[in-house]
Amino acid sequence: MTARLKHKDLLGLETLEREEIELILSTAESFREVSERDIKKVPTLRGRTVINLFYEASTRTRTSFEIAAKRMSADAVNISVSTSSVVKGETLRDTAKNLEAMKPDCIVIRHASAGTPHLIAKSVACSVINAGDGAHEHPSQALLDMLTVKEKLGSIDGIKLAIIGDIAHSRVARSNIYGFSKLGAKVVVAGPATMIPPGIEKLGCAATFSADEAISGADVVMMLRIQLERQDESFFPTAREYSRLYGLDNLKLARAKKDVIILHPGPINRGVEISSEVADGQYSVILNQVTNGVAVRMALFYLLLGASKEEVKK
Amino acid sequence: MTARLKHKDLLGLETLEREEIELILSTAESFREVSERDIKKVPTLRGRTVINLFYEASTRTRTSFEIAAKRMSADAVNISVSTSSVVKGETLRDTAKNLEAMKPDCIVIRHASAGTPHLIAKSVACSVINAGDGAHEHPSQALLDMLTVKEKLGSIDGIKLAIIGDIAHSRVARSNIYGFSKLGAKVVVAGPATMIPPGIEKLGCAATFSADEAISGADVVMMLRIQLERQDESFFPTAREYSRLYGLDNLKLARAKKDVIILHPGPINRGVEISSEVADGQYSVILNQVTNGVAVRMALFYLLLGASKEEVKK
Amino acid sequence: MTARLKHKDLLGLETLEREEIELILSTAESFREVSERDIKKVPTLRGRTVINLFYEASTRTRTSFEIAAKRMSADAVNISVSTSSVVKGETLRDTAKNLEAMKPDCIVIRHASAGTPHLIAKSVACSVINAGDGAHEHPSQALLDMLTVKEKLGSIDGIKLAIIGDIAHSRVARSNIYGFSKLGAKVVVAGPATMIPPGIEKLGCAATFSADEAISGADVVMMLRIQLERQDESFFPTAREYSRLYGLDNLKLARAKKDVIILHPGPINRGVEISSEVADGQYSVILNQVTNGVAVRMALFYLLLGASKEEVKK
Repeated sequence: MTARLKHKDLLGLETLEREEIELILSTAESFREVSERDIKKVPTLRGRTVINLFYEASTRTRTSFEIAAKRMSADAVNISVSTSSVVKGETLRDTAKNLEAMKPDCIVIRHASAGTPHLIAKSVACSVINAGDGAHEHPSQALLDMLTVKEKLGSIDGIKLAIIGDIAHSRVARSNIYGFSKLGAKVVVAGPATMIPPGIEKLGCAATFSADEAISGADVVMMLRIQLERQDESFFPTAREYSRLYGLDNLKLARAKKDVIILHPGPINRGVEISSEVADGQYSVILNQVTNGVAVRMALFYLLLGASKEEVKK
Repeated sequence: MTARLKHKDLLGLETLEREEIELILSTAESFREVSERDIKKVPTLRGRTVINLFYEASTRTRTSFEIAAKRMSADAVNISVSTSSVVKGETLRDTAKNLEAMKPDCIVIRHASAGTPHLIAKSVACSVINAGDGAHEHPSQALLDMLTVKEKLGSIDGIKLAIIGDIAHSRVARSNIYGFSKLGAKVVVAGPATMIPPGIEKLGCAATFSADEAISGADVVMMLRIQLERQDESFFPTAREYSRLYGLDNLKLARAKKDVIILHPGPINRGVEISSEVADGQYSVILNQVTNGVAVRMALFYLLLGASKEEVKK
Repeated sequence: MTARLKHKDLLGLETLEREEIELILSTAESFREVSERDIKKVPTLRGRTVINLFYEASTRTRTSFEIAAKRMSADAVNISVSTSSVVKGETLRDTAKNLEAMKPDCIVIRHASAGTPHLIAKSVACSVINAGDGAHEHPSQALLDMLTVKEKLGSIDGIKLAIIGDIAHSRVARSNIYGFSKLGAKVVVAGPATMIPPGIEKLGCAATFSADEAISGADVVMMLRIQLERQDESFFPTAREYSRLYGLDNLKLARAKKDVIILHPGPINRGVEISSEVADGQYSVILNQVTNGVAVRMALFYLLLGASKEEVKK
């Protein structure tokens, strides 16, 4: 394999070229079968060190990165905010420089503030992967979404993707708008007026306040998680009203294409943004997304840490 | 080895057959020496993934499962409640289905609610091990208790086992009643009236409010941990009174058989349910239990994850 | 390599002989290049188990020990206080005995109480490494400091080391006073009167209340972290006043030798005990310390766990 990512880091899909995205997806496809084996492990990244630096709680993302690292035979070290010296008032950059000095090959970082992974990437020589920064980007999530669509529909080019929910606060939405539109999809976002940021179209999508309009003729419907804990913040009146207008049920789904697939980054709020019959129904590929998440992260580790050095050596 | 466990999961000893328990114990015996080597590791489960999903804090059980997995060369991933997405309101079944989608070979779960591991086992294709569910079962603890008795006394058949303490709230007691009685032991439970559930005899044991009576002629005395934090709940008057009536000291111990052995699942409350001279004395096998715990968990991983597939392959 | 440490544990530098310190440093030098490789791993300690038992939060120390263990191919198991059964009231010694029963090769312990690692070391047969006990010792930190000075200056013998800050509450200071003076350095400690314990000279150093005096002619200046959270405790008036009198800036630094190097155990409080221009300047070797930390801990694991048994076997 001679293709390369152009940067040492994966910070977002906004700055990635179409060819790079395609390279990641095709690499992920080749790693997907590893997790189906009895011995779910390749020796490719033996002796590499991955640090998972999570300033926000996470089950699935941290676990997915950790499993991906281990299936590539890398050593994974977890640091979560609660046990971290950030409580001692060290600057983020100093924390990163200190971790870098232990010679990891990659730092995977999740942080509540947009731009944190970029700051760290500039400070350290090792690779940095953005595992979610505020409401900015969550590129590995969008890549696994794209991998899932490619797996189920064969291609992304020319499809219609509807993303429904709190677009304004969603790093998942943002990364997917960038990623899917670069691969030729038509992206439409929908949500209540308080959740559609003005000017979102500049990212390369259409926007509407009508879920029905977004879903009409869609090949892919992506539901976003509603943060019920934000109900007080007056973004939306009540969970029940939100659900009636924007939650995905079989009725709304009937407007989509016949073989529509339904994505959700999880964890899902059953009966809020998605009904149980839809979440568990024949069109849902939510669990395929999770499986593909491990493959995408294996591919990212491979492309960022492994490929180049290996070629030199072998 | 052609023998097998009949189920993909280990949820409790109530549903295990005598032959299955004996198979686990004999397998554990063969793994016990691995932990005595310089290189405490066998390659048997290389490339397998074990997820430790702990909704309750635990040092020894989680550590024991993690060490057992690593000594079998499996990859172990820990998820504890505090960093988990359960805070985000996901259903337990959805959490399990999501973890399953990452293709682990086994999920080890501890949860405060009885029946949780069973719910999860039904939801996922991978193996599930119950590491303690509410006041229901803690099968790996009972298995290590049985392994310890077998190691020290040679056999379980025909012995008298006294279990003393808060039987009503003890998953350890329940699993041990099932396990020991299936292997031919006579089990007597003892404790204050508030701690002996009505009808406990149906599980296959005798019951008494007198510790002395239970201990008389016992080959094995198992003391249960008293949850001092429950003193307020009026299950027992004071720690001192409990200790006088039910705590094990040399005086009470004199009623047991000459070569009695004393078990405790730990952590022990010195001077409450067990005196220090008994806990540290010649009859105590409390630390042997811990050592055997690693061996039992290695055996469980081997029997649930490794044996069958390996045979096919080799 | 036939040289040995004389004890199974590393509890402090007070009780280590000069030859032992030199052995650790030279061993660490040989491991330093492992972290510079693509494949940062040697098989030396495969099948050994290291338990990191941290009763105090820590990013860098725990991570450094964990990475060191993994680069030696040992299995590392982390236990942090929040998930530990210490909440259940078990004695520290019982916790240690229980962990020992799982047959680890080494327990790395950090605890807020001085002497805890010594208590545990006496209780268990496996090796114990003190990763910081109260205000007592933090030997691996001092060893990495010495390794850094040796790397940068060639030798420790005859140099002047100034340690500035809260000497009274600093395990880092204490271990460094022992270590550096054993290797022939002249150590001067400086800080406000409330932070210099009476009789500190008995440890083998000079003491002064004047930072300028300590820094004058120093080859090495080691700044200690000020615990800002202790401001209320009246050890010092304000961070600003402390900084003016004891914080290291270019002005104070001008009194040191021309090629002075500056150490800090981290995490640093920029603008309090050290100015940013000094911390990031040409004389700072703070990040080298972190890199050397991994090498020192690899050496400790090697000398305590690996060397002797290996010789017997190979």
